[in-house]
Amino acid sequence: MYAAPVQQLIDELGRLPGIGPKSAQRIAFYILKSPAEDAARLASSITAAKAKVTWCRRCFNIAEVPSAETGGSGDGAECEICRDPRRDSSVLCVVEEPRDVIAFEKTGLYRGRYHVLLGALSPLDGIGPAQLKIGELLARIEAEGVTEVILSMNPNTEGEVTALHLINLLKDRSVKLTKIATGVPVGGDLEYADELTLGRALEGRHEVR
Amino acid sequence: MYAAPVQQLIDELGRLPGIGPKSAQRIAFYILKSPAEDAARLASSITAAKAKVTWCRRCFNIAEVPSAETGGSGDGAECEICRDPRRDSSVLCVVEEPRDVIAFEKTGLYRGRYHVLLGALSPLDGIGPAQLKIGELLARIEAEGVTEVILSMNPNTEGEVTALHLINLLKDRSVKLTKIATGVPVGGDLEYADELTLGRALEGRHEVR
Repeated sequence: MYAAPVQQLIDELGRLPGIGPKSAQRIAFYILKSPAEDAARLASSITAAKAKVTWCRRCFNIAEVPSAETGGSGDGAECEICRDPRRDSSVLCVVEEPRDVIAFEKTGLYRGRYHVLLGALSPLDGIGPAQLKIGELLARIEAEGVTEVILSMNPNTEGEVTALHLINLLKDRSVKLTKIATGVPVGGDLEYADELTLGRALEGRHEVR
Repeated sequence: MYAAPVQQLIDELGRLPGIGPKSAQRIAFYILKSPAEDAARLASSITAAKAKVTWCRRCFNIAEVPSAETGGSGDGAECEICRDPRRDSSVLCVVEEPRDVIAFEKTGLYRGRYHVLLGALSPLDGIGPAQLKIGELLARIEAEGVTEVILSMNPNTEGEVTALHLINLLKDRSVKLTKIATGVPVGGDLEYADELTLGRALEGRHEVR
C-alpha cells in the first residue's frame, strides 16, 4: 500500500521493542515530515553508536571501542568501571543488562565491580545458560579473587529463574552469595503494593532495635 | 552517565513521537545488542525514506522522488493516485495525513482523488491555516473542476476545528461540501461506545425503509 521506501522504514521501526505496527507508522511519518537534518542525525546516531560502542571484555557492560590513539589493540575494550583501579575487585554485582549497572551507579552506594549477563534465562525465547555470560562469570570469580557475589536480577520470573540457576552453580564454591532485598519501594504506598511484594517485604523483615 | 554515543542515540530516539526516556533507553540497548547488519538496515531505511520520498506536488500525499530514468524533472513528484487517469477528478477527499489516504484506499470504495492537509489546526502547537495545505486546496478546487469536497478530518477537536474552518472558506463556493459520518464503529459494542459517539450516531440516524 505504501511506497517501497516508506514500507521498509515502517518494517524496520516495527522490529524495535515496544513499537507496534501503528507506532511504527506514526514514527515513520514523523520522520518523513521532520527536517532532513533531524533524520540524518537519527540515522547517524544509530550507526555511530554501533561503531563506537561494544561490550566490555571483562564485565560485558557497554564500553567505548578503543581508538588508535588511546592505545587500544586486539585486546578489546574495557568499560570505565573495570578500568577504575579504585573499585573493589572482591565484590561482584551480577546484573542482567548494562542499564542495571547505570541504575546501581546512580545510587552512589556501590564501590565494587559488576558482571552483566546480557539477558536473563527465558527458555521460551530460546535464551538458555549458553546465551548468557555465565561461563565468563565463573571464570572471573576464579581469576579475580572475588569473595562476594551479589545477585541483582530483576524481581520477575526470568530474573528469579536466573538467580536460582546461579545459586545452584555457585553454592559449592567458597564465595559468599547474596541477593538484593525485595520489599516495598521507598516512597511507595502500602495500599498500592501488590500481595507478592508485601509478602516479600514481610519475609525480609529485620529487627530494628 | 552513559558513554557519549549511547547517550546521543538515546536522545535522538527520545525525540520520536510516543517514545519516552525509558523506551528510548530500551530501544537504544536493543540496537546495541542487535547484529550490526540490523542496525545498518534501520539507519539506511531512514536515510533512504527521506531521500526517496517526498510530497506529491498536487495532493501532498507521499510520493516517490522521480528518478532520472522516469523522466522526472523540476516539476516535482506526483503520487500514484494523482497519476492514475482512472480516478475521478471531480471528487476530492480532504484528509489530515498521508496515512488517512491509505485508510480510505483500504476500503476499496473510493474512486475520487485526495487532498492531504499535512496536519490539522492546532493553535496551541502553533499550527494555523498557513501551516496546512489549505491555499493549495482552494487552488485545486478552482483549477481541477472539483464538484464535491468530502471533509474527512479526524473526529477529534483539532479535526473538527479544521473542518469548520474549511466549511467557512468553502460555503460560498458552488462546490458540494460533505463530511464523513460519525457514529458507532462497525463491530463495536453499544455498551462501550462513549456518550459523544452515541449522541452523534443518534443525530446521524437515517430512515431505513
